[in-house]
Amino acid sequence: MELREHAIDAARERELDARAVDRLVFFSDAVIAIIITLMVLEVRLPVLPEHVGEAEVLRAILALWPKYLAVVLSYLVIGLFWTLHHRRFNWVRRVDATLVWLNLLYLLAIACVPFATSLTAEHPGRTSTIVYAGVLGLATMISALLWRHVGRRPEIMASATASREMHLATLMSVASAGVFVVSIGVAFSSSNLAQYFWVLVFFANRAARYAYDWRHAGDRAAPDA
Amino acid sequence: MELREHAIDAARERELDARAVDRLVFFSDAVIAIIITLMVLEVRLPVLPEHVGEAEVLRAILALWPKYLAVVLSYLVIGLFWTLHHRRFNWVRRVDATLVWLNLLYLLAIACVPFATSLTAEHPGRTSTIVYAGVLGLATMISALLWRHVGRRPEIMASATASREMHLATLMSVASAGVFVVSIGVAFSSSNLAQYFWVLVFFANRAARYAYDWRHAGDRAAPDA
Amino acid sequence: MELREHAIDAARERELDARAVDRLVFFSDAVIAIIITLMVLEVRLPVLPEHVGEAEVLRAILALWPKYLAVVLSYLVIGLFWTLHHRRFNWVRRVDATLVWLNLLYLLAIACVPFATSLTAEHPGRTSTIVYAGVLGLATMISALLWRHVGRRPEIMASATASREMHLATLMSVASAGVFVVSIGVAFSSSNLAQYFWVLVFFANRAARYAYDWRHAGDRAAPDA
Amino acid sequence: MELREHAIDAARERELDARAVDRLVFFSDAVIAIIITLMVLEVRLPVLPEHVGEAEVLRAILALWPKYLAVVLSYLVIGLFWTLHHRRFNWVRRVDATLVWLNLLYLLAIACVPFATSLTAEHPGRTSTIVYAGVLGLATMISALLWRHVGRRPEIMASATASREMHLATLMSVASAGVFVVSIGVAFSSSNLAQYFWVLVFFANRAARYAYDWRHAGDRAAPDA
Repeated sequence: MELREHAIDAARERELDARAVDRLVFFSDAVIAIIITLMVLEVRLPVLPEHVGEAEVLRAILALWPKYLAVVLSYLVIGLFWTLHHRRFNWVRRVDATLVWLNLLYLLAIACVPFATSLTAEHPGRTSTIVYAGVLGLATMISALLWRHVGRRPEIMASATASREMHLATLMSVASAGVFVVSIGVAFSSSNLAQYFWVLVFFANRAARYAYDWRHAGDRAAPDA
Repeated sequence: MELREHAIDAARERELDARAVDRLVFFSDAVIAIIITLMVLEVRLPVLPEHVGEAEVLRAILALWPKYLAVVLSYLVIGLFWTLHHRRFNWVRRVDATLVWLNLLYLLAIACVPFATSLTAEHPGRTSTIVYAGVLGLATMISALLWRHVGRRPEIMASATASREMHLATLMSVASAGVFVVSIGVAFSSSNLAQYFWVLVFFANRAARYAYDWRHAGDRAAPDA
Repeated sequence: MELREHAIDAARERELDARAVDRLVFFSDAVIAIIITLMVLEVRLPVLPEHVGEAEVLRAILALWPKYLAVVLSYLVIGLFWTLHHRRFNWVRRVDATLVWLNLLYLLAIACVPFATSLTAEHPGRTSTIVYAGVLGLATMISALLWRHVGRRPEIMASATASREMHLATLMSVASAGVFVVSIGVAFSSSNLAQYFWVLVFFANRAARYAYDWRHAGDRAAPDA
Repeated sequence: MELREHAIDAARERELDARAVDRLVFFSDAVIAIIITLMVLEVRLPVLPEHVGEAEVLRAILALWPKYLAVVLSYLVIGLFWTLHHRRFNWVRRVDATLVWLNLLYLLAIACVPFATSLTAEHPGRTSTIVYAGVLGLATMISALLWRHVGRRPEIMASATASREMHLATLMSVASAGVFVVSIGVAFSSSNLAQYFWVLVFFANRAARYAYDWRHAGDRAAPDA
């Protein structure tokens, strides 16, 4: 009797664990959906006189191009953050308070991307470049702390291979954060150069993944979504 | 032992696949819900003097009618896109990186509809007609790429009959994209004519579906939601 | 073999049906959550001079009271619509295209409530009263069409008793719509009277429910959430 | 036959109950995600002249610091409310009308936090301090009513131990509400002191939890997420 009750409790706890993970992921998805969508919806034509000519309208639309470019790039950046967040959360089986709060701070950093984007589009230059790099640097640093936290706690991971994946995620986040932090220094000599410098994030991540794959070549394949 | 572990891994992978599809659909639903709702909430009365008469208020409300019309039409257009997106995602069993990114680009295109709608309502004419046709043309083109991608990968489809459905979805998307692209040319002679031209999208889609149904008349019925 | 395949197809179809209902409800929930939240977030203090005194700030906050009142009332109205929508959708087992589109129109009508609310708060009078009654009248009329549609199609209802529930839902919606439509006429003599008239909606709904309960007193209890 | 039908009805009712709880939680999550995200997205640079110098941009960004501080603090406060709401809803097995409406009022109070936050950042002083304390006091009072309601109805709780958890939740909410209400009085002598006074909420909650844990030290551990 005592034993059976324990089994029921254990089953109920597993179910609550799974629901807690689902809800955290759902909440994160909702926040990112709002951020990404509002950033695009923000792109608006300035108020023009009512019966303005076609040429004026066309000029006003074309004048928005730095805004379009910045928004599309930030959309892709947040999209990338979202896919990584998703894929990695597949390895999480349970959430604890630290994970919830690191995730909330991560979402707070992502929620600052539209501010940095609009700053970059409206006032291109050193200040906006540093703010943009700072926001992404912060987001990737929190990401590193988050996956390091998960990777060190077997009780919240989905399987034995997860700790390696979490190790990789931490490495990739640290690599990205490093690029953004260094680019802040670069921005002091040239903000254009700092922006080109960000392309290194892709290579830093690729490098981390290849190094990881090469090291664990003999191991089983990891789920990927 | 080895075998059983494989079976558990396979079951876990199937579950992860199903969750990944659900999340992609959920994320898309959230983004489209935000777009559709904010577009309606945007319709606002201009600021009037505080103790203005009833006649003034009525006139201000009625002056918004081109805005209402444009928003209601765009609401129905996005609603149609949403139902098609939903119904077709029933055929997807697994997501890969290409599908995730094509879907993000699709949502980006849909997120531009409110911009085009507001432009059309405020500055009717050739430019706004071309922008509207361009946005819908882009959305349907990305849609075509998306379903073509799915239709060519048996490993991400839910069943054997799915490849035909995906083929149909691709055809319908291409047909719609074609109408929008041609209407851009039409807009150079008359923007009114171009807007009437869009009605052809309905017929092009119907035609594609009838042709498809006629061709596969002997096959089993397909789920539909 | 043929038979088993049919069984699998039937199971898959049932699963797709359930998912389609869940998604429609989820989408509606998301749209209503956005409407209800943004309506509250819209209540903002007008821009005051930076170093204004405490008395000024307090006066500006208190001056917003018609806005607060209107928003809280509309919040409760939409909240009521949401709970009814939810409870009734428990009786739906499958969705068809008509249901999807009636639901989209229903959401469109609800999305107009914040517009009517802000109009009522800023320009109280006959016009705003008629607009508010018109929006709620429209929402309840679409609701009546929606539940009438469901109630007439046994294949999309969850159980045999559902048709009675749907009949009740239709009656209640028609009763509410009737009150709102009549109140538009009342508004022409007095907008205050028209607003008091809305209280009848509660009684009309209660009356419909009591009449229904009395008629079906011998039947089994209905689920309620 | 009669019996089996009853069993099916009971199973269906349990399923509907679980879905109703899930939807209420989902709806609350969506509303809180919108509130928390829009509050952050609201932080915007004032419109500056187009070709303004780097120093001007930097000064404008730094001038926003009281806004940043207020938003980050409110983000953490709402985050805390959200985690508590979540954890406690694990103990709810069924929803009734009172729970739905108390939850809607709770969300309404939370939706007022951004208003209070922006007021505090823009017009620091007695009035804004009282408004902020009032909003949080209202939210915690509604929370107390909500958990007291659940704790008194065994038929809507998930397990026998839940009533104790609900008792604890009620106590913690009352303790927090008490601190906020008293701080309104403190604000009349000094608004700074009132804000420091809020720190007591943490200690009041800790104290309630420790007292509870000490009293129920011998009982079984409770799930926590």
